[in-house]
Amino acid sequence: MYSEGMSTSDTSDRLIESTRELLWERGYVGTSPKAILERAGAGQGSMYHHFKGKPDLALAAIRRTAEEMRATAAGVLDGPGTPYERIEAYLRRERDVLRGCPVGRLTMDPDVIASDELRAPVDETLDWLRERLAGIVEEGKEQGQFAPGLDGESIAATIVATVQGGYVLARASGSPAAFDVGVRGLLSLLSPHQDH
Amino acid sequence: MYSEGMSTSDTSDRLIESTRELLWERGYVGTSPKAILERAGAGQGSMYHHFKGKPDLALAAIRRTAEEMRATAAGVLDGPGTPYERIEAYLRRERDVLRGCPVGRLTMDPDVIASDELRAPVDETLDWLRERLAGIVEEGKEQGQFAPGLDGESIAATIVATVQGGYVLARASGSPAAFDVGVRGLLSLLSPHQDH
Repeated sequence: MYSEGMSTSDTSDRLIESTRELLWERGYVGTSPKAILERAGAGQGSMYHHFKGKPDLALAAIRRTAEEMRATAAGVLDGPGTPYERIEAYLRRERDVLRGCPVGRLTMDPDVIASDELRAPVDETLDWLRERLAGIVEEGKEQGQFAPGLDGESIAATIVATVQGGYVLARASGSPAAFDVGVRGLLSLLSPHQDH
Repeated sequence: MYSEGMSTSDTSDRLIESTRELLWERGYVGTSPKAILERAGAGQGSMYHHFKGKPDLALAAIRRTAEEMRATAAGVLDGPGTPYERIEAYLRRERDVLRGCPVGRLTMDPDVIASDELRAPVDETLDWLRERLAGIVEEGKEQGQFAPGLDGESIAATIVATVQGGYVLARASGSPAAFDVGVRGLLSLLSPHQDH
């Protein structure tokens, strides 16, 4: 319940949260300004007070989702453990797998991808993630944990792709198990103890 | 141009093709029966003559897309070469990467995933692909090309996930290169010549 003394930043926040939910549930094309206002319990005037319109609101919603994902990933990647262990922790961290990746899923929304502005936070977040992972792989190579022939940048892309594709497999089968199987395969290939 | 002597199977076919295009461009929620009829140049009566409605037509469209993907993948996986070479050929086969996987993308459509009937052809196709790849990995293990400790089923899931996630990376960055980098990383991990 919102108090009567609700500030304008509360309204702005509720508009962003409602847009995030709707983008998630219905995609950009299925998210009407009317539905956003209804869900946020806000009037048209207050929306145009804070945002230029649906694209502007969608951008704020996507940015917030991207920031959250980055913070969650950093929490694991900057955590304790060897490079292999931190990559494993990232791959195995608890996820709502059947919902899909809040950021990755946006790449399958035709309207998001058609707009350079809406695509930018998605691209930047996945880029950041790959660079962070590439650094950890390089660290592991220096410590002799990964083979010197491996290329950090490529392995990082494979790690991110396995996670993103794992969501696809899980959603297709209706079960999170399919995600876990793909992760297990990647970890067996990355494992310093595998007997190649 | 369609001739006046157009048969009913031509109409059915055009309805299916129009639905495929629209599902691809606009998603299920954005695909109205009206838009399908307009694109197919067909009347409402002819649609209901062939199909029970939009869900039925969407199912026929998804089934056709799934069959095509299966035939394309089989063409490479059943081709010549060692197990590693066939997996490499599958990973490197020419793709319209920026469009995304016609089958995998459907898993990000909330309406497709909410329907067991529409989800089934997607699930079956990805399942078939994983089983086919798992068989090839097992073949490679028997031939000493892959480490005996690798599990065919998990590696197959990692391969499919890398491809599906590769589309996500490519679409996020607006460039097919991101797909190729992830594939390169996976191949370096799978390579019989890597020096682990």
